[in-house]
Amino acid sequence: MATPDLDSPPPRRGRPGYDREQVVRIAVQLFNEQGYDATSVADLAARLGLTKSALYHHVASKEAILQSALDDALGALEGALAEALATQDAAIDRLRHVVRGAVRVLTERLPEVTLLLRVRGNSDAERSALERRRAFDQRVTAIVRDAQREGALADDIDAAVATRLVFGMVNSLTEWYRPGGAVDPDRLADDVLRVALDGLDRPAAP
Amino acid sequence: MATPDLDSPPPRRGRPGYDREQVVRIAVQLFNEQGYDATSVADLAARLGLTKSALYHHVASKEAILQSALDDALGALEGALAEALATQDAAIDRLRHVVRGAVRVLTERLPEVTLLLRVRGNSDAERSALERRRAFDQRVTAIVRDAQREGALADDIDAAVATRLVFGMVNSLTEWYRPGGAVDPDRLADDVLRVALDGLDRPAAP
Repeated sequence: MATPDLDSPPPRRGRPGYDREQVVRIAVQLFNEQGYDATSVADLAARLGLTKSALYHHVASKEAILQSALDDALGALEGALAEALATQDAAIDRLRHVVRGAVRVLTERLPEVTLLLRVRGNSDAERSALERRRAFDQRVTAIVRDAQREGALADDIDAAVATRLVFGMVNSLTEWYRPGGAVDPDRLADDVLRVALDGLDRPAAP
Repeated sequence: MATPDLDSPPPRRGRPGYDREQVVRIAVQLFNEQGYDATSVADLAARLGLTKSALYHHVASKEAILQSALDDALGALEGALAEALATQDAAIDRLRHVVRGAVRVLTERLPEVTLLLRVRGNSDAERSALERRRAFDQRVTAIVRDAQREGALADDIDAAVATRLVFGMVNSLTEWYRPGGAVDPDRLADDVLRVALDGLDRPAAP
């Protein structure tokens, strides 16, 4: 019996060499194309050119991949919120900070955020993600309410509705922003804040 | 052999009596819950309490149901746009008209519009719906551009980006508007127009 050669990597047997991060990235693309619920582990193995057992070497289950991608997107959004909350700025500036941060997260993690925005709560991973999205929204709503109290935002609109509409704009970027396309990501955050704060009927504040 | 009794309806054999419209409505709910691609005809028959062959008595195929729901949502949105374009109003008023119309369509046809916003282009019916959405967006963008030319909207933001952001707000209503809930549908269109046109940093124009 041959002893394993400890100095060499194991033989590859001709299959592509993925690491876990690449498996998750390709899986998220496939989930976004055909829906998470409609994607089987067999579909995913076929896309990767792996057998199902080789795929299970990288990831424990389809839901583990989903969990990993949702954690990535939510962790980055929660990080942007924590940064905004850590400042001593006026509430209006904390709001600008979190909107800019969310746009940045969305452009940098477009597939993961797209997946996050499509989850419907059909599994524990999805329900937990929806719960974290709700907590995020509530904390941003509190910032909007503070900005209204501080007189920087008009208070004739409900803070929760205003927050949802602003994040409706941010989240809609997943529908049409394409990395490397004609629209500059830095400009996107300016445009969202410009519509949200100034309105379209007058030029942006300097 | 007994002759059929022409004066009586055929025996029901205990199955629920659906018409085509009810079948489509329940199917759309199921598509929204678990995804169109992940829903089989067998799932749908089970939800309706029908056999597959009884279901095929009502509808030719799963895709025919999808087509019907997408036509319903798109037809209503295109109707709102046509109404706005038929007026001799200033472009800014045509824009108000189409945004109000789109919010009304969305609140009245929430399941169908929700389904429309989730289609990814995996079938002819979906690709045709995406094409109609694009045509709708382009015609609204032309209204925004006219309003900029007429001086009613600031022209320091790209008309296509502004249109996408405004409809990002409108479409986000599918995520949180619930019929019969605390938020009045008439107020929603006011709020969207108020953020889009006036901005959050000053009270709504009277």
